[in-house]
Amino acid sequence: MGPEVMPLLENRNDIDLVLWQQDCACDRKWFLENVQGATAIIVMFGDKVDSELFEAAGPQLRVVSTMSVGYDHIDVKEISKRKIKLGYTPDVLSDAVADICIMLALMAGRNARESMAVVNEGKWPNYSWAPFLFCGRQLSSTATSQRTVGFIGFGRIAHATLARLIPFGYTHCLYLANPSSAPATARDAALAAQHHLQSVQRVDADTLAATSDVVFVLAPGGAATEHLVGARFLRRMKPTAVLVNASRGTLVDSDALATALRERWIWGAGLDVVTGEPNIAADHPLVKEPRCVVVPHIGSATIETRIDMATLAVNNALAAIAGEAMPASVEF
Amino acid sequence: MGPEVMPLLENRNDIDLVLWQQDCACDRKWFLENVQGATAIIVMFGDKVDSELFEAAGPQLRVVSTMSVGYDHIDVKEISKRKIKLGYTPDVLSDAVADICIMLALMAGRNARESMAVVNEGKWPNYSWAPFLFCGRQLSSTATSQRTVGFIGFGRIAHATLARLIPFGYTHCLYLANPSSAPATARDAALAAQHHLQSVQRVDADTLAATSDVVFVLAPGGAATEHLVGARFLRRMKPTAVLVNASRGTLVDSDALATALRERWIWGAGLDVVTGEPNIAADHPLVKEPRCVVVPHIGSATIETRIDMATLAVNNALAAIAGEAMPASVEF
Repeated sequence: MGPEVMPLLENRNDIDLVLWQQDCACDRKWFLENVQGATAIIVMFGDKVDSELFEAAGPQLRVVSTMSVGYDHIDVKEISKRKIKLGYTPDVLSDAVADICIMLALMAGRNARESMAVVNEGKWPNYSWAPFLFCGRQLSSTATSQRTVGFIGFGRIAHATLARLIPFGYTHCLYLANPSSAPATARDAALAAQHHLQSVQRVDADTLAATSDVVFVLAPGGAATEHLVGARFLRRMKPTAVLVNASRGTLVDSDALATALRERWIWGAGLDVVTGEPNIAADHPLVKEPRCVVVPHIGSATIETRIDMATLAVNNALAAIAGEAMPASVEF
Repeated sequence: MGPEVMPLLENRNDIDLVLWQQDCACDRKWFLENVQGATAIIVMFGDKVDSELFEAAGPQLRVVSTMSVGYDHIDVKEISKRKIKLGYTPDVLSDAVADICIMLALMAGRNARESMAVVNEGKWPNYSWAPFLFCGRQLSSTATSQRTVGFIGFGRIAHATLARLIPFGYTHCLYLANPSSAPATARDAALAAQHHLQSVQRVDADTLAATSDVVFVLAPGGAATEHLVGARFLRRMKPTAVLVNASRGTLVDSDALATALRERWIWGAGLDVVTGEPNIAADHPLVKEPRCVVVPHIGSATIETRIDMATLAVNNALAAIAGEAMPASVEF
């Protein structure tokens, strides 16, 4: 977890530390062999935490601490049944991910992938300037326009992204929430007042798709949200709008999005996540689309934020070992 | 100038319209032959406006209207001596260029070029997740940090960029102004108050370089500003900082910047402009640097803004022909 954070563990004489030494994802076989007898385990979002792992660890396991805000790699039913605590790292990564959301929205609207390729391949000299050459769509409003942002999922990262959009001239905010969640009318009114927005409104998927100039997908992964953005949603979007996914790949139907881009149902897309990652080949339907910007799940990948996430993951584990309240735990 | 704007000229029975029909930069020979007898000319930033052109036009020429905010392609001494009016298109492009400034700052900090290449070349499967894989520098502040932005040139586009940075947690703003310009203490205090900044301060180049987390180059081109960002400036910058140039290529010494990136004096750079553009080959020292994002001068390239710019350029020309005040003219 890096030279800034490892001393928090290494300097503790009361802890036996079993460490996967390599700077790559932990080997499953090694993990199953070495987890035996652990009181606490610190994992990354690529490490599957399931009954097989719990059986290998043994009944003394008190806490799983994941260095991630998402926990779809963890079998929540099993962990709750076994009364094991679950630590995670919300909040500390919201700014880094919101930054990537704005970057991807701008890149998708401004044809950044296509225009960078023109320069990198040495083709800029072949283009003669013309008034509409390389023109994209503007994320910000102009003097004569309004702008509406739509969020699929409206948690901390969405709120941080919304805040960043305000000076871009956004006037309306729509969101789709978990159907089982209670209305948040007072919270929405407060957000609208804080940001001088004309409205912050919970709507259905069809309305959100049809009305938004930019859509950010920022909901948890898992079966309940799979393919929330599919052909029906994409067909309803404005042809000038862009789609950004910085949550989990499963929320977006990759084939439908590739078709939407190819047939220009929408202007562009920016993806930090893709179903099946990291096994995404160069001929993946989305990677092949020039209007699709794909980056390799770098939403929280800043040195500052990863240090904060690692610190919080360690502190969650240490608190649970000591029987104290964890700084950030998932409650079941 | 596109189907939205051309009718403003085509529908006028009192105007003889001589039109370069092709959707590429105007041929110089054609221009010199066809400008003869013109009352007004509308030009783009690639069209050189000099005494040769004025001689070819003849003494009846009343106005040059450029569809750009910069006018370093126009011989200002000659135009002023000849008492020809000069129209340009400020303000309408500020939002589009400020958007690109934020995009380039984020891309430079987050290693967007390198990480997109990993995906596009099908190499993502080769990377195993690790806590600091692909990590960049964060544009926004974290809970424990402050952020300082530096502007070289502090006009409309810089102000629009500054506004966009506020929700990213910026606390301090420094700028370098034209040495002959008067202090703007009241304006700076008002900006600080408006944005809740701890300070907005005019400083020298050394201070700006050493203190800023991100530097935006947004000053006019020309001899007076050539290589304002050179080896001395770049050596003083923080190794974690990024440089963005969205004004004119001449302000940045390309060779010094390539060295700075190669030797990691700074973290990254985002360039919308490069000296010698568009004749930038794939083996240009800056294009070869993985930490240098270069896009082909697309700062104002949105459909919305180019329509607004073309409309203003036409209205400037029509106003001057009618002897009326131009909506946006350069005063000498």
